[in-house]
Amino acid sequence: MAIRMAVIGAGRIGQIHAANAARNPAVALAGIADALPEPAEKLAGALGARVVTVEEIFADPSVDAVLIGSSTDTHADLIQRTARAGKHIFCEKPVDLDLARARECEQAVKASGKACLIGFQRRFDPTFSALKARLDQGEIGALEALSVISRDPGAPPVDYLRRSGGIFKDMLIHDFDIFRWILGEEAETVYATASALTDPAIASEANDADTTAVTLRTVGGKLAQIHTSRRAAYGYDQRFEVLGSKGMLQAGNHRPTEVVASGPDVVSVDKPEHFFLQRYEKAYRIELDHFVAVLGGREKLRVSIEDGVKALELADAATTSWRENRIVRLR
Amino acid sequence: MAIRMAVIGAGRIGQIHAANAARNPAVALAGIADALPEPAEKLAGALGARVVTVEEIFADPSVDAVLIGSSTDTHADLIQRTARAGKHIFCEKPVDLDLARARECEQAVKASGKACLIGFQRRFDPTFSALKARLDQGEIGALEALSVISRDPGAPPVDYLRRSGGIFKDMLIHDFDIFRWILGEEAETVYATASALTDPAIASEANDADTTAVTLRTVGGKLAQIHTSRRAAYGYDQRFEVLGSKGMLQAGNHRPTEVVASGPDVVSVDKPEHFFLQRYEKAYRIELDHFVAVLGGREKLRVSIEDGVKALELADAATTSWRENRIVRLR
Amino acid sequence: MAIRMAVIGAGRIGQIHAANAARNPAVALAGIADALPEPAEKLAGALGARVVTVEEIFADPSVDAVLIGSSTDTHADLIQRTARAGKHIFCEKPVDLDLARARECEQAVKASGKACLIGFQRRFDPTFSALKARLDQGEIGALEALSVISRDPGAPPVDYLRRSGGIFKDMLIHDFDIFRWILGEEAETVYATASALTDPAIASEANDADTTAVTLRTVGGKLAQIHTSRRAAYGYDQRFEVLGSKGMLQAGNHRPTEVVASGPDVVSVDKPEHFFLQRYEKAYRIELDHFVAVLGGREKLRVSIEDGVKALELADAATTSWRENRIVRLR
Amino acid sequence: MAIRMAVIGAGRIGQIHAANAARNPAVALAGIADALPEPAEKLAGALGARVVTVEEIFADPSVDAVLIGSSTDTHADLIQRTARAGKHIFCEKPVDLDLARARECEQAVKASGKACLIGFQRRFDPTFSALKARLDQGEIGALEALSVISRDPGAPPVDYLRRSGGIFKDMLIHDFDIFRWILGEEAETVYATASALTDPAIASEANDADTTAVTLRTVGGKLAQIHTSRRAAYGYDQRFEVLGSKGMLQAGNHRPTEVVASGPDVVSVDKPEHFFLQRYEKAYRIELDHFVAVLGGREKLRVSIEDGVKALELADAATTSWRENRIVRLR
Repeated sequence: MAIRMAVIGAGRIGQIHAANAARNPAVALAGIADALPEPAEKLAGALGARVVTVEEIFADPSVDAVLIGSSTDTHADLIQRTARAGKHIFCEKPVDLDLARARECEQAVKASGKACLIGFQRRFDPTFSALKARLDQGEIGALEALSVISRDPGAPPVDYLRRSGGIFKDMLIHDFDIFRWILGEEAETVYATASALTDPAIASEANDADTTAVTLRTVGGKLAQIHTSRRAAYGYDQRFEVLGSKGMLQAGNHRPTEVVASGPDVVSVDKPEHFFLQRYEKAYRIELDHFVAVLGGREKLRVSIEDGVKALELADAATTSWRENRIVRLR
Repeated sequence: MAIRMAVIGAGRIGQIHAANAARNPAVALAGIADALPEPAEKLAGALGARVVTVEEIFADPSVDAVLIGSSTDTHADLIQRTARAGKHIFCEKPVDLDLARARECEQAVKASGKACLIGFQRRFDPTFSALKARLDQGEIGALEALSVISRDPGAPPVDYLRRSGGIFKDMLIHDFDIFRWILGEEAETVYATASALTDPAIASEANDADTTAVTLRTVGGKLAQIHTSRRAAYGYDQRFEVLGSKGMLQAGNHRPTEVVASGPDVVSVDKPEHFFLQRYEKAYRIELDHFVAVLGGREKLRVSIEDGVKALELADAATTSWRENRIVRLR
Repeated sequence: MAIRMAVIGAGRIGQIHAANAARNPAVALAGIADALPEPAEKLAGALGARVVTVEEIFADPSVDAVLIGSSTDTHADLIQRTARAGKHIFCEKPVDLDLARARECEQAVKASGKACLIGFQRRFDPTFSALKARLDQGEIGALEALSVISRDPGAPPVDYLRRSGGIFKDMLIHDFDIFRWILGEEAETVYATASALTDPAIASEANDADTTAVTLRTVGGKLAQIHTSRRAAYGYDQRFEVLGSKGMLQAGNHRPTEVVASGPDVVSVDKPEHFFLQRYEKAYRIELDHFVAVLGGREKLRVSIEDGVKALELADAATTSWRENRIVRLR
Repeated sequence: MAIRMAVIGAGRIGQIHAANAARNPAVALAGIADALPEPAEKLAGALGARVVTVEEIFADPSVDAVLIGSSTDTHADLIQRTARAGKHIFCEKPVDLDLARARECEQAVKASGKACLIGFQRRFDPTFSALKARLDQGEIGALEALSVISRDPGAPPVDYLRRSGGIFKDMLIHDFDIFRWILGEEAETVYATASALTDPAIASEANDADTTAVTLRTVGGKLAQIHTSRRAAYGYDQRFEVLGSKGMLQAGNHRPTEVVASGPDVVSVDKPEHFFLQRYEKAYRIELDHFVAVLGGREKLRVSIEDGVKALELADAATTSWRENRIVRLR
């Protein structure tokens, strides 16, 4: 019996998840919903699915699971409604920009007893997940320190940033999840500083920053540093490294090809994959397959709504640390 | 209007091509044929296609193209019959082990006026094709020399080797195609030497070799060296490099992940992708899409049956050079 | 006319500087002094120099310059005496563990009008200095962020640590100098946290840490993160990377050889050079030659005693930040 | 007691060996001889040695060893005279361009009972010698195949080439030595082809080639391929790789620095070291120290005049193979 999955949101990320769902042989697409008719019809047409309304999805008892890929401000409401409707959830990050609201969602999901996967797709990246597996096997002994470098190729429009919740919630939410996942310990203190260096309007108009430096100290004294930037002239830079008592593991960037060019000036290779759609193409596919495997009872849920809430707690604390220029103690 | 494509051969390589055809939205699978009922039914079931006979394929005027992925000894016959039936062909390499027979196929295809793509999938590998495009753009000036390293993770059974046509036709056929494609010139002389170093039975029972060194000299004086081995303890090794008047381009191996491990003894990365199914996964997909684009008039055929014949000529010449211990002049 | 240079300190670092001085054709060794007669005699013998006392050095008007490579607690006194004697100084880092004392030395040197090179040898490392030159040429535009990873292969004895001034003065003094040199701006705030993770005695007996995370924010809003550890199972790890508006430059580790090994499990290269004596062998040589070139009027002093004092200010601030768990504002 | 070493030849290579001898504490320079007075005086002055004549060297019973770094056409005569004078020899490659003459030298050396090191400095390169040591330890099992890539940054003047003995003796002599040293077996057959691709005058005026492809087959069936070019736009390219039953070892190029630059187009590293003086700087030093250690009885001679003769045999055979377009069987 196929899992009947409905998709809410036919934008960029909804398209990816819907296409991945369509190619999973255990899934039947139960409909595509979007606030705008055109993208919904286009996506439904491409995948041989039909356009439905959000209300139809929740009312349809044959729908097993809902894939929420609509805009951030709709996530919390849709999670709560889906939970109440007794359906499984795969929701893009973040749960919500407001921590209290996110915790309400967490409660609703727990009450429903259904699975809820939050879309921290990086955990499903082949390089990142292989590294994590090797940590779990003890390859580098006891973990001591984590360094994360996370840079986008370019900043989104200031208009977007104004409504984004700020760089710590919008961009670093992924890095905070990496921190929790890789070190396997919660933070005790957070210190964050940030600057607007790529475009003064990011500070003056969006009251936001584009370059950050965050330090997290875990309850066990492990140390983590995160550096992010909204702009890297050379593309999308996604690396981290973990130091342990017996060695180090590093996750490097992926490149489109393995061509090496030796010329009169330098020896060169390709830049990293352009942006997250390219870099995490496999991760998105594996993530969707994981969700299906969880619903089929073949895998254990790897990212819960609690993970989504806890990453948001760290993003909140980092925002406070930066804005109030102080070290923030968690809990 | 979808292109109606029938598949002959439901073995390992047929499965890959059929699955790639199934996911191309411009293709409708017109049926799966195999000498054995079981694999045909299994593949047809997985792809929602039906099992047909070879005869039904040729008799069906609605079939536009035939994908030939059956065993090597059936290729020539099926190419000729498909050509006579007036259908387009996508046939796995080699055209045939016998050069005269392969030339007959070439004639049959020419007479039919239909497209015939020979499955030299390496030309569609992202790294190899990016390198070729850069050569064509003149990045390293006039080409002077080519070095190819091509090693399998392990030798096939001696029984297989006995019927394989020998290492030059069975394994190096790909490398001879790389030589012609990359240097863009035909060979004037071929010198080949070879040894059986991994398993004495390869010499004593299959009268074959497992390690080769081939030198090709083009009509323009360009030099190429090919080294192959049936066994590399570290996996599938597929590299080449081209020297030109202005620099060098190298095609390196692909790795499953970009994890770097620093331990007490060494700093290490993953071995190359395990074997051709992993390394050329993307190439097979792009190759199928190319065939479809050719049939749709959107792309120009990138590998013709003439390419298949010419690679076989080189394999023949190399075999002669090795067996008779002499330099062979082409033409 | 050769520059007559006397050496104080015949221990590990004194030996390196003395040997580099001996091989510089513009230098004549004017004597080797050490608190212990044996090492002084051994080093003098190896270099064809004679053993002298510190007093003889200061009293000898033919001595042009003094190379101070004795223990840290003697640096300040020797700098002041050498300055008073009107001789040029090449002194190992740090100037002193006490900031007020270091500033007195700075005054003494300024009053003397003589050159004083402080031994931040990393600035002379071929990789680091090439990177710095490229920054100065504007290759990556305006600088935005710096990440430094600095790890020793193993911690020194707890006894040593007890008298070391703490990890920020003993180990990170180099990294603070890198920060100032690379970003070319002074720090406005420092935040530091640290743990003892490799050996509990480092905390309990030396009241010190072995793993640190430091964040510096410059007056211009540039961000820098430094991570250090006293132990890396894979050897001496000395890297940093700089992000600018037009790209990134990274300084990687040096390896003893360029052998690449492909085996059944991994593809591997050498670990980094073992420790600072190996990694900075060339840097020490270039540093000595630079000092000689400065005295000869051919080069401008690249590291002054002011640089030594300012790195110490940062180490002091970081120590305070860690011990008092607060962000420290400089100046 | 220091070894008294005289140097014949004060040109580029003589300067290197003489300077390395001067810095070895076990060596006393017994004099510098050169056909031209000026370079001899300049070198002697720089090293604190005196200018002598060749006759004085051979007549001086206190001279233990002679370092022959003069032009190739003088090697054989000087080897024979040094051997007759009962002194140890360190002679640059090649022994002579004429095989018969080289064999006479070999006899003279054997009759003298003195050490004779032929300057195949590549054997002393840290990367190459580390690789060889790992082969000897069995790391990759039984050896099967060798691939050598050897390219100069640019061709010497045609005038030089005319008197060079041809590319196989002048340039590949090193690669033939690498072949014998690495595979540890003698060649049974040689096949060589070559072209003049960088400058037509190399063919028309020097009757020589600039690009070569050589295949050697050992008596045990191991296969080796050598590719060389007189020109690589990106500098000096010195690589080889060895395949064994248990894996592969590769020797890569050395780079001046470990800076990695990520820009809008590519990620790049330094080109290889410019030419042999830079790349083999360490090798030349280790080679001289080895010669001294051999004379002092602390090491066993690692390159004999027999090695010099055998490399020349291969160069002769390759020249014949190319000129007569045939496979040459050795012995």
